[in-house]
Amino acid sequence: MLPHMSNTPIARFDDLLSTRARIGRGGPAAPTRPVVNALYEFGGGFPDPASFPYEGIVEATARMIKVEGAEALTYGDHQGYRGLRELVCEKYELFEGLHVKPENIVVSNGSGHALSLAFSAFLDIGDPMLSEAPTFSGTLNTIRRHGPQVLDVPVDADGMVTAVAREQLERLRREGRRCKLIYTIVNFQNPAGPTLSLERRHELIRLAQEYDTLILEDDAYGELRFEGQQLPSLYALDPTRVLRAGTVSKILGAGFRLGWLCADPSMIPIFQSFLFGGGVNPFASRVATYYLRDHMKEHVALLIDVYRAKRDAMLKGLWDVLGNTDVEISKPEGGFFIWIKLPTGTDPARLSERAVKVRVQITPGTSFLINGGGENFIRLAYSFEPPERCYDGARILAEAILDSRR
Amino acid sequence: MLPHMSNTPIARFDDLLSTRARIGRGGPAAPTRPVVNALYEFGGGFPDPASFPYEGIVEATARMIKVEGAEALTYGDHQGYRGLRELVCEKYELFEGLHVKPENIVVSNGSGHALSLAFSAFLDIGDPMLSEAPTFSGTLNTIRRHGPQVLDVPVDADGMVTAVAREQLERLRREGRRCKLIYTIVNFQNPAGPTLSLERRHELIRLAQEYDTLILEDDAYGELRFEGQQLPSLYALDPTRVLRAGTVSKILGAGFRLGWLCADPSMIPIFQSFLFGGGVNPFASRVATYYLRDHMKEHVALLIDVYRAKRDAMLKGLWDVLGNTDVEISKPEGGFFIWIKLPTGTDPARLSERAVKVRVQITPGTSFLINGGGENFIRLAYSFEPPERCYDGARILAEAILDSRR
Repeated sequence: MLPHMSNTPIARFDDLLSTRARIGRGGPAAPTRPVVNALYEFGGGFPDPASFPYEGIVEATARMIKVEGAEALTYGDHQGYRGLRELVCEKYELFEGLHVKPENIVVSNGSGHALSLAFSAFLDIGDPMLSEAPTFSGTLNTIRRHGPQVLDVPVDADGMVTAVAREQLERLRREGRRCKLIYTIVNFQNPAGPTLSLERRHELIRLAQEYDTLILEDDAYGELRFEGQQLPSLYALDPTRVLRAGTVSKILGAGFRLGWLCADPSMIPIFQSFLFGGGVNPFASRVATYYLRDHMKEHVALLIDVYRAKRDAMLKGLWDVLGNTDVEISKPEGGFFIWIKLPTGTDPARLSERAVKVRVQITPGTSFLINGGGENFIRLAYSFEPPERCYDGARILAEAILDSRR
Repeated sequence: MLPHMSNTPIARFDDLLSTRARIGRGGPAAPTRPVVNALYEFGGGFPDPASFPYEGIVEATARMIKVEGAEALTYGDHQGYRGLRELVCEKYELFEGLHVKPENIVVSNGSGHALSLAFSAFLDIGDPMLSEAPTFSGTLNTIRRHGPQVLDVPVDADGMVTAVAREQLERLRREGRRCKLIYTIVNFQNPAGPTLSLERRHELIRLAQEYDTLILEDDAYGELRFEGQQLPSLYALDPTRVLRAGTVSKILGAGFRLGWLCADPSMIPIFQSFLFGGGVNPFASRVATYYLRDHMKEHVALLIDVYRAKRDAMLKGLWDVLGNTDVEISKPEGGFFIWIKLPTGTDPARLSERAVKVRVQITPGTSFLINGGGENFIRLAYSFEPPERCYDGARILAEAILDSRR
């Protein structure tokens, strides 16, 4: 049976596409793997491959298969493997003293997927929502596919500027519209870097209550705090009105594609109903759980040291070269990213070209803004390369920045 | 930080829900795990746990981590692990002599998820589509969440009755509406059992061409053919107009949550765009691929013997007791399920009660019809229990059927 492999363009079937398929079409796809021809991969938020616990994973797989192989290889619980949900509770307890129950957790295929469950549950096309601007480009792709109207709220050193959030909410109210949800990255905001201050956390909760809306709290990096004080999550401040997304991608490995939403148990069935088929990966869930059950604390401690060293190396490389300019460089208290406001006079197009030439992979600031802007910014990830390459690459890129003045 | 764990019902936030969240609400959830208190688990299509290659999986994990551990533990290709896509091509070649390329495949979290990608790409709420009636209950749950209008097409011994499909398409045309897609389970139709005849396969393709629509071909069980002739897939007959869903759930293990859509490469980016975040499970994809690369042919041969014996045992148990009635019992040429039209006079409600009492888990026929009907049918899965229990449980259930006459 040799089918005729046609080159017919989808254009033939374009008129069959759903509205959601049309509206998101042509949006940029986030990179998911290190760019092969880059010498310095500072683009995506790829975890440090040298820190993956390879032997530990093999050992956990063997141990797990012995104990619950039959359950690991068949369909799973709609809400996600209970052992993993218990582990998430332990994690919250360990790192934050936050008490939640497995009933509050629904497991997803990574936290991007967790966010999509919340968007699917609450957003119709055209519905208003608030988001930090800039915000994570991957989330913007997911948001595009759901088609809401995104109202921008700027970010300063204390995180989302809640005064502007209030203005946006008030404006919507005057128009007789209701904000469906407020999306925020509370710790080491991606890409801009700040952590939402305690005062603003309380203010944001007040806003959600006053304007009767929900908050979607994205916290993929919270455990990887190098310094500074950990603040209570928004979820901890109002567990009925906040949906909190988390992931094992940064504390273990993104390859397991395991994340979750933590929310009021009454909402869980709604999110579950957008998980199509068979429960989120029973096999990967159990391998990750068996590993993390025994090693979470020590492994996270190790990762904090690893990523702090990388951040510091990259910052040093940048400042060594750009110290005499008016560049603005974030110093996040954790996470994977540095956000740079380019020195006055830098030509972003020229910089893009030069970065390719010196083979440093970067992400342009425009990727992080759904309503335009960001031309004078770039984001660098220090997570993937070893510290010495973070330093060298940062210097090379900084030279390219200097060479890109108009 | 001790949050107040409130019992606030979602009702508080009901007015924030999206249309899709509302329309699918309250639909029945498919069982994903064997019911603990059933003595005979004939409900869900759970693979045979005794056939899982436990040691092979542990060995494949160790081997894979050595070769490409770094790739397995980080984000993956948006289209899915290329090794798995190559394996799917090998599988099609091996079992069907069908040539496809990795470019034709997009990996999903199981075939239910693959179907949802197609529904998301093509269905708006209210859009018309055709489906066999009865059809798989899990797919009906996914369909409910997308909100199309489903037009029923009955099934007979040769599969979907294409003459009725033509009538439905013609009726839509008269109404000035266009069928978005035709959903069909071509081999050992779930639940009814028939395989779509070659003549009907050609006719269905003609219909799709004539009415300019797409076909979504669901084939989760095709390799598990116990007897009878394998027919060319609909995809092989028209690879530009057919989207074909497949899975490793039945030939390896559902716990890996790996499926795919095979379609014209021009359509792949559309499906991909509904995969939120990071590529489908890089870790599980690689473990499954490493195992199946070396063992697919022999493992599938083993499974065919395993499931054939179970089917035969269950059929014998049913016929031994019900031989003197006008019961109708399917004899599928493969797959996991038997479909039973209960003897005249059977009270389905009474049977449900008695089945619980004798602890035989069954699925009522009504689960497989979205527009009503099916009261006089039940579906049994012979996949999970060993043959002797398939026989015993079938006898016990058959007695319960006899005891449930009005």
